[in-house]
Amino acid sequence: MEIKSSSKFVAELIGTFGLVLFGCGAAAVAGVDTAGGLSGLGLLGISVAFGLSVVVFAYAIGGISGCHINPAVTIGVLAAGRMSAKDAGLYILAQLLGALLGAFVLQTILGGQLAGFTAGEWAYGSNGWGKGYQNEYGTAAAFLIEAVLTFVFLFVILATTSKVGNSTMAGLAIGFTLLLIHLVAIPVTGTSVNPARSFGPALLAGGQALSQLWLFLVAPIVGAVVAAFVWNAIEPKGAN
Amino acid sequence: MEIKSSSKFVAELIGTFGLVLFGCGAAAVAGVDTAGGLSGLGLLGISVAFGLSVVVFAYAIGGISGCHINPAVTIGVLAAGRMSAKDAGLYILAQLLGALLGAFVLQTILGGQLAGFTAGEWAYGSNGWGKGYQNEYGTAAAFLIEAVLTFVFLFVILATTSKVGNSTMAGLAIGFTLLLIHLVAIPVTGTSVNPARSFGPALLAGGQALSQLWLFLVAPIVGAVVAAFVWNAIEPKGAN
Amino acid sequence: MEIKSSSKFVAELIGTFGLVLFGCGAAAVAGVDTAGGLSGLGLLGISVAFGLSVVVFAYAIGGISGCHINPAVTIGVLAAGRMSAKDAGLYILAQLLGALLGAFVLQTILGGQLAGFTAGEWAYGSNGWGKGYQNEYGTAAAFLIEAVLTFVFLFVILATTSKVGNSTMAGLAIGFTLLLIHLVAIPVTGTSVNPARSFGPALLAGGQALSQLWLFLVAPIVGAVVAAFVWNAIEPKGAN
Amino acid sequence: MEIKSSSKFVAELIGTFGLVLFGCGAAAVAGVDTAGGLSGLGLLGISVAFGLSVVVFAYAIGGISGCHINPAVTIGVLAAGRMSAKDAGLYILAQLLGALLGAFVLQTILGGQLAGFTAGEWAYGSNGWGKGYQNEYGTAAAFLIEAVLTFVFLFVILATTSKVGNSTMAGLAIGFTLLLIHLVAIPVTGTSVNPARSFGPALLAGGQALSQLWLFLVAPIVGAVVAAFVWNAIEPKGAN
Repeated sequence: MEIKSSSKFVAELIGTFGLVLFGCGAAAVAGVDTAGGLSGLGLLGISVAFGLSVVVFAYAIGGISGCHINPAVTIGVLAAGRMSAKDAGLYILAQLLGALLGAFVLQTILGGQLAGFTAGEWAYGSNGWGKGYQNEYGTAAAFLIEAVLTFVFLFVILATTSKVGNSTMAGLAIGFTLLLIHLVAIPVTGTSVNPARSFGPALLAGGQALSQLWLFLVAPIVGAVVAAFVWNAIEPKGAN
Repeated sequence: MEIKSSSKFVAELIGTFGLVLFGCGAAAVAGVDTAGGLSGLGLLGISVAFGLSVVVFAYAIGGISGCHINPAVTIGVLAAGRMSAKDAGLYILAQLLGALLGAFVLQTILGGQLAGFTAGEWAYGSNGWGKGYQNEYGTAAAFLIEAVLTFVFLFVILATTSKVGNSTMAGLAIGFTLLLIHLVAIPVTGTSVNPARSFGPALLAGGQALSQLWLFLVAPIVGAVVAAFVWNAIEPKGAN
Repeated sequence: MEIKSSSKFVAELIGTFGLVLFGCGAAAVAGVDTAGGLSGLGLLGISVAFGLSVVVFAYAIGGISGCHINPAVTIGVLAAGRMSAKDAGLYILAQLLGALLGAFVLQTILGGQLAGFTAGEWAYGSNGWGKGYQNEYGTAAAFLIEAVLTFVFLFVILATTSKVGNSTMAGLAIGFTLLLIHLVAIPVTGTSVNPARSFGPALLAGGQALSQLWLFLVAPIVGAVVAAFVWNAIEPKGAN
Repeated sequence: MEIKSSSKFVAELIGTFGLVLFGCGAAAVAGVDTAGGLSGLGLLGISVAFGLSVVVFAYAIGGISGCHINPAVTIGVLAAGRMSAKDAGLYILAQLLGALLGAFVLQTILGGQLAGFTAGEWAYGSNGWGKGYQNEYGTAAAFLIEAVLTFVFLFVILATTSKVGNSTMAGLAIGFTLLLIHLVAIPVTGTSVNPARSFGPALLAGGQALSQLWLFLVAPIVGAVVAAFVWNAIEPKGAN
């Protein structure tokens, strides 16, 4: 069954759009209690939002594009020798567009006139570190945690989608890994491990989010490339 | 294996009954702490309730009716050319009846004599927007979020149940999508993306819930129909 | 592969032991915050504990005994004509013993010398209703919610384990259903839908828990038997 | 497909590294609220972190090493006669190294300069009991709960990976069991059931964590060995 490049492009765009819509959307509303006095989503709810978004799109578009919806994943898969550089470029473009569209729709719906969702608070979905951001970790801690966690993320992705993995459960395992990553890293960087997910909100938020964007492009890619080499070294002969 | 129309009707009725029983039931009790001082369900608990209800009935009645339990799903599947208009009418009737029955049973059990569950508070399971409802979002935001999220919902449903999907995991992915939708949209509309789920509580609650019901009929259907066209455009040749 | 009756007995005993250990154990500690000021499990955590216990044992002992670990399930399966009365008696005996053992181990570990786990508070894992119990619902509400929710529980069990179900995912769907049941019913009865789960703690707690035990024997069985008849009526010809 | 010993060693090392990184990392940040006033992870979040870590690595490295990432699991599998003593030694060495590496990376990233993550608080990820630790349970309660819960853990592991188990769902069931174990045992011992998971943080934390380490080596192994004998007694003839 031949899959058209345009279908892959649309699939990656919609998947990354959905990841930002659900993940950053949950982050934006997480601190808000509703009229009935309900407790908000908290850190667990945000982590669930990002993690299950990957689960959902893995099963929806996995058969079309493989559901990367993350430039670091695409570069890790490229480094592992499983895709062409041309396809990788196409994927990354679709991911950046999808993330920007997701951030724009969130801003349109949640931003604006009502208490609790001013433009400043919407910027909450952005990644960052240092003075004024979450627990005010330093640059080294931010870089290290993003690189290490992306390493684990890509290791799980490459392993579960290899011949020694379980193709039925791979999507669940990969999404749960992103959930776990958020459980640990939100107080440090808000958790990126995904250049596109940082790019969309940063472009709309500007300011610190934009000036710190470089770390969320570089650190995840470093972790992803290292994972590709480690996995290829231990992969059993004959597996994928 | 021939499935009788009456079996499909009963399956859709029980499934939608269960969705309202668990989902709106959790919404009704979510803000309540028990005698032991436990924390209530909060927004995460309500989201889990709606999402897992779809997971559960997908595996219970999926083999009988396909487990739509949502008129927007039925109309999206119809627009994608996967079912007949006659069956769609039957499904929607069963869904409306099931939702009404679910709301009635909840009102009978939870409403009434005890502090914390007066009739007014039961109406909490209803959808709405604007003054006095949750974070008081406007009509445009309510319409947009319901349409966009139903688009994503139907996109995932049509993709996971196509030939490029994974039939074992489709029910899990679809239910998790509804969970994600609730994580983001509860502060805006209480989250419908399902005309039947809004219809049942609104009919019993009356007032604002009933006068605002139109949006929860129209917006989800718009999103569902757009999703059918987008999915059909990118679906690989030869898939379902 | 022949399964010995003694293996089935031990499997049902260990499974029900585990259900009480995890479910009632979580209920006992749910309101307690640890030294580090962490938030307790709350209603969501208790619901997760009961639900995932069924998931876990479904995959562990499903191949040996079918993992009923609940007399209402055994009676529902009997009413659906899928097991013998002799086996049903054996199963129920194992379930009652396992639940009692689970409650005893919990009492031994958690009860006693330390603040926060006095004997009185341990009784918290018991089911009940009326004055002094949770939100003080009446007998009719307690009976109705236990019967209706057990109906839905058995409907899902009989459907997912039939030929139109998905044998890989049945355990997950059944456990998630118990999770959903707890999300709604804890404020009313603490949630039983399982005579053995009520029996163990009640026997050790005595008092109100023991004098109200009858409802948690009768209501779940009523719901289970009705579900067996409804499912058999709509089950497709040729399925299980 | 031949799997090299070095691949098994690296897989167990990375898996145990990830378990400590996610599990103890979540425990370290669980009590911390971020700048936006979000609620922290709480006991449910920590339990999810440990449980899903096992799920994730079960599907990632299960095909390489079987994903023990726990010396008690390795000893239980050895006692059940399913692996050689030589391989068991290799596995345990990799697990201890991986756990130590995980604790070291956490200390490097989270420890140090910022309020909320002083060296003392990092020790929070350590196991223990008695005066000054969580709810101050005694030694007998700590030993009993660790032994009983490891018994259940190994019972589920041996059952789900036998011929009467479901190979696709085994990883999910095993990870969910660890989640359940944490729901109940965090207030007592912080929950170990894994000598390596206790070893890593204890070596870095020193003090009480190190002097109490013996219990978290002995009790889990006792429970694991008993489970091996019970499972072998009830295992159907011809299974695994």
